[in-house]
Amino acid sequence: MAIRDDADQEYLIAPDPEGEGLTRAVQGIGQDGKPHTINVVEERPLTIYLNSREIVTAMTIGDHPEYLALGFLRNQGMISEADVVTGIDYDDELSVVVVRTAVETDHEEKLKKKTRTSGCAVGTVFGDMMEGLEDLSLPDGKIRVSDIYALSEYINRTPSLYLAAGAIHGTVLCQGARPLVYMEDVGRHNAVDKIAGWMASEGVSSDDKLLYTTGRLTSEMVIKTALMGIPVLVSRSGFTAWGVEIANQVGLTLIGRMRGHRFMCLSGEDRLIWDAEV
Amino acid sequence: MAIRDDADQEYLIAPDPEGEGLTRAVQGIGQDGKPHTINVVEERPLTIYLNSREIVTAMTIGDHPEYLALGFLRNQGMISEADVVTGIDYDDELSVVVVRTAVETDHEEKLKKKTRTSGCAVGTVFGDMMEGLEDLSLPDGKIRVSDIYALSEYINRTPSLYLAAGAIHGTVLCQGARPLVYMEDVGRHNAVDKIAGWMASEGVSSDDKLLYTTGRLTSEMVIKTALMGIPVLVSRSGFTAWGVEIANQVGLTLIGRMRGHRFMCLSGEDRLIWDAEV
Repeated sequence: MAIRDDADQEYLIAPDPEGEGLTRAVQGIGQDGKPHTINVVEERPLTIYLNSREIVTAMTIGDHPEYLALGFLRNQGMISEADVVTGIDYDDELSVVVVRTAVETDHEEKLKKKTRTSGCAVGTVFGDMMEGLEDLSLPDGKIRVSDIYALSEYINRTPSLYLAAGAIHGTVLCQGARPLVYMEDVGRHNAVDKIAGWMASEGVSSDDKLLYTTGRLTSEMVIKTALMGIPVLVSRSGFTAWGVEIANQVGLTLIGRMRGHRFMCLSGEDRLIWDAEV
Repeated sequence: MAIRDDADQEYLIAPDPEGEGLTRAVQGIGQDGKPHTINVVEERPLTIYLNSREIVTAMTIGDHPEYLALGFLRNQGMISEADVVTGIDYDDELSVVVVRTAVETDHEEKLKKKTRTSGCAVGTVFGDMMEGLEDLSLPDGKIRVSDIYALSEYINRTPSLYLAAGAIHGTVLCQGARPLVYMEDVGRHNAVDKIAGWMASEGVSSDDKLLYTTGRLTSEMVIKTALMGIPVLVSRSGFTAWGVEIANQVGLTLIGRMRGHRFMCLSGEDRLIWDAEV
């Protein structure tokens, strides 16, 4: 396994720890009772519209609003692959992003369904959360354990907002041993949605991809990854039982507790090629 | 600072890492390519009703459903202190909990407001999220830095689902150097809501309390703590800028990055008594 030192070169989109408006210097008092200045991540509301309809206000760090909006709508099933997106307009001052489609979709219907069963709260499920999972078939492609080790080390060493200010989640879209797009956000789902938005914008296929996340492998995260068509999900964090169950149902390779050369694979281990020394 | 060895004795409610139905043994493959069995936390839907109205389906580990339901409704402002709760019925088989009040509240109106501005998603804000913060006045009481150190160490050493299975958040209601109620959940907001439900059930005052959380100090967490009337919020995790801003606005003492005898206080440091050796 080669350790690469050209991390920044290889990302198509890398985190921007120096990015304007992403962190703020804040005055505080340390355990020594003396004033200290530390950098903390921003967290701001972004309201997403689909055509003339207000859909959601998400709390986000604020970068890549267009990808976040498009990815959110795709991941919620409010825009399908068949819908033609005619434009995405972001208004910085109003903190609003509008996604326009050629034909109005059935999002109102979706919205009604969601409201009925969840009523909006942190940590909720949607009425149609499992929708589309029954017919799902994820591609068979193999993944080398040595590539997973290389990715994990590479990602952990990448300069990020997490390393600069903490309190943020990261998600990385990878292909083989190469990390392509590394998104961060205060909401871990936002980071995944930004990846989905980038994939939809660029027409990137999901078949040969792997998703790495710093967050936990809950049911929502597993479902989202599966619906995006990505066959492998890796995390440094742990699992929930339902996340594992769904991964097994849909045949997703689920790897957690990834630290150094240690991990646990709780689903889809048939995709692994054991080419690394133990 | 005395280190106490009678942790379990002191909690009114402690985590139950051996609790039936809270974790599940799952078969997987480790980095050695061999089968391993690990314990992972459960995550199941619980649907909360207020009288005849379905309010939300939360993803929860499943313990203390009555406290979760009551605390959720209180923290969402759907039940106020003035409302008389006449009963809370939990149906294990249906995964439903119904909270009944003497008089029907204006929760339908609240629900409409929320739907309009958030439309339900992970990481959303509510239209009236900041409601009630303007008039809020938190009590002045002091807190010893030595007590915070003692609490932090005590909590970290407490047997918990986190230590047993990971992928779970904890929140502890404390008074002085004493931790009273330690709740855990897959959703960090659920853990806080269970605390709120317990406080409402037992008629416990918030004035002299401190809330400790394993999760990040985001705007939602700060607002929730302030609306619960608890003047001090401590976390081992980091901050977001808006969380800090709101804490300063409402005069909440906000302490993060709490590890061993290290921390950062970014708001309300006037409540601290610096009685610990640096």
